[in-house]
Amino acid sequence: MKKKDEQAIRDLVECWLNAAEQGDLPTVLSLMADDVVFMVPGQEPFGKEAFAASARKMKKTHFGSRSDIQELTILGDWAWMRNRLEVTMTSPNGGQTHRSGYTLTILRKTLNGNWVIARDANLLVPQPPNE
Amino acid sequence: MKKKDEQAIRDLVECWLNAAEQGDLPTVLSLMADDVVFMVPGQEPFGKEAFAASARKMKKTHFGSRSDIQELTILGDWAWMRNRLEVTMTSPNGGQTHRSGYTLTILRKTLNGNWVIARDANLLVPQPPNE
Repeated sequence: MKKKDEQAIRDLVECWLNAAEQGDLPTVLSLMADDVVFMVPGQEPFGKEAFAASARKMKKTHFGSRSDIQELTILGDWAWMRNRLEVTMTSPNGGQTHRSGYTLTILRKTLNGNWVIARDANLLVPQPPNE
Repeated sequence: MKKKDEQAIRDLVECWLNAAEQGDLPTVLSLMADDVVFMVPGQEPFGKEAFAASARKMKKTHFGSRSDIQELTILGDWAWMRNRLEVTMTSPNGGQTHRSGYTLTILRKTLNGNWVIARDANLLVPQPPNE
């Protein structure tokens, strides 16, 4: 069961990054709990609606991501994961920004057996392009 | 049991902040797992030894902290906590720096029944003194 849950969470990360790359916001939103809390440095925590609003504002930006899961621990219907992410954002005029760093994420299994993101601390910082 | 664990974790946070205030590094170190991983923005994750080395370098700095636990969820021998922290560091020459923000922490109950910090994502950022 643990192996199955672990795979389901790895699939969730893959699915999230692919959906973000394709600008498929409904799929991204389906992978988070309704009461999800996102945390980033220097900002108050925010939820699903604020995430969606911010994604809509950036809908012309292309997202490319690489993920390298460092740790994943299943605790029954909960799990925590430590991930390393590299994100490249390309604006419509071709300008690129790169961010890299770590995330610490709490996940929860819903009643229908799907895993969703419940809490996420995102420590990514801007990175020079050729670093 | 959950109530008892919750109180034990609240006591741990209190104990940590008091020990940090008093420069009592051994007590602070006793509240983290040997394989603890700390994450801060713009830096590679680090463990107990690096934490201790950095604390020793800052042993003349006085730490004052205020903590406001936002959420605490017990999952058997594991727990996760979302905290809001304000930290004031006063150097020997009287200069002060303030940092505030949120943390997301994974805790674990050891075999002897004590809770320790296992993973910690620290999103605190510098803050102007009068904000």
